Amino acid sequence: MKNFADMQPAQIRELIRRKEITGPTAGMAKNFTQTNLVILKKEHAFDFLLFCQRNPKSCPVIDVTEPGSSIPRLAAPNGDIQTDIPKYRIYRYGELMEEVADIKDLWEEDMVGFLIGCSFSFEFALMNNGITIRHIEENCNVPMFKTTIPSVKAGIFEGPMVVSMRPIPEQDVVRAVQVTSRFPSVHGAPVQIGNPQSIGINDMNRPDFGERVTIKDGEVPVFWACGVTPQAVALQVKPELMITHAPGHMFITDLQDEKFSVL
Amino acid sequence: MKNFADMQPAQIRELIRRKEITGPTAGMAKNFTQTNLVILKKEHAFDFLLFCQRNPKSCPVIDVTEPGSSIPRLAAPNGDIQTDIPKYRIYRYGELMEEVADIKDLWEEDMVGFLIGCSFSFEFALMNNGITIRHIEENCNVPMFKTTIPSVKAGIFEGPMVVSMRPIPEQDVVRAVQVTSRFPSVHGAPVQIGNPQSIGINDMNRPDFGERVTIKDGEVPVFWACGVTPQAVALQVKPELMITHAPGHMFITDLQDEKFSVL
Repeated sequence: MKNFADMQPAQIRELIRRKEITGPTAGMAKNFTQTNLVILKKEHAFDFLLFCQRNPKSCPVIDVTEPGSSIPRLAAPNGDIQTDIPKYRIYRYGELMEEVADIKDLWEEDMVGFLIGCSFSFEFALMNNGITIRHIEENCNVPMFKTTIPSVKAGIFEGPMVVSMRPIPEQDVVRAVQVTSRFPSVHGAPVQIGNPQSIGINDMNRPDFGERVTIKDGEVPVFWACGVTPQAVALQVKPELMITHAPGHMFITDLQDEKFSVL
Repeated sequence: MKNFADMQPAQIRELIRRKEITGPTAGMAKNFTQTNLVILKKEHAFDFLLFCQRNPKSCPVIDVTEPGSSIPRLAAPNGDIQTDIPKYRIYRYGELMEEVADIKDLWEEDMVGFLIGCSFSFEFALMNNGITIRHIEENCNVPMFKTTIPSVKAGIFEGPMVVSMRPIPEQDVVRAVQVTSRFPSVHGAPVQIGNPQSIGINDMNRPDFGERVTIKDGEVPVFWACGVTPQAVALQVKPELMITHAPGHMFITDLQDEKFSVL
């Protein structure tokens, strides 16, 4: 197996484009920022961008394509959101219709792509600080929960914040806050520490998305705003057509995670 | 004279609305965030919001009104951008036509207001750290310069970054970087320190906007991205109608500056 971690983003994207990589992208092109993708028609683009602007913790915008263009000019000028994600999800009127390997046949001239920051970026930063990530250890998807924290409405878009949870050893919680605070553009500091009930989470073993992970003695559940929020919110609107990445199958940009650190 | 510094934002806005305050707002409602204002028609709103998103240092968006509404629901739910600024500028096709005390007669149903962060916020933070602000000492407007730093284009909007300059004593430069880095939502860290030529500024005594200030021995000119940038860029497009605040006559929000600190 090739060492995808040490490859450049453009090399990985080329392999994805040639359908030689078809699975999840976690751990590939180390230190480069991976993003969620939401594609909507132009009629919804202003409201959706405004929703993201109003909810920067859950919807940190990394790049937006010009209407009709599938090139993320800032994040990956040689990339193409029609082909460079291993697996896409096609939603019509809010229903998941199919998963596909590219969207060349579906692209239309009034589409706008939103690249939204993802937790991979701050997980690297945590690991660089010696804080291990349980769902990586357990080789599963991060547990995610719908909360009672409302997002700030924008036009037709509204809905609750979705959070991801990582168990953090008690003595590392302060450091985890510091490390992730440096990255406000990729979810930033936690939204809740140690009291899931206060944000409407009653059963830590039943995440709404992803999988459960072990919480060991002496560990505190820490919750971060999650990039699934904008997808969940956009789906509630039941747009005629919405295209996203499939979970874990992210868009790999040319931007380095460290670029998003403010300190 | 009343002590405007200790009044609440809503009280100041009420006095402005009644035309009892007609001058600059610097120093009023201490610790509350003041903003630049740009009003455009909806047809330009997506491109302009995208421009701001792509240029967060010069165009930090604090709030955007829903199309047709003049209420900044997040920044000041009891405020009104038709009346709560002491002096507005009306531009038609890129030309300054007049300055007015309210825009009730000009408001239209397809207008969108953009409240954009202003340097008052980080100046308070600098002063709280014992770093004096020269243009406040000299009781004049901050000197601002067009640079050779290009903004990132979005749709029809493009143009160079405008920066503001503050002379900082050499021994305080590092602290000034630290303090302003905490506030990425209100311009953040400097863009240049000590080498104006490198960003196309050849004569420190001839600012493009505002007024010159004294640079004393042992002081370094430090440059921050400036909220005049989006106005300058929007004007180049020569929109049929654009309304802004007059320089120094800002919109005072209910948000506290400290809220915008990430650490």
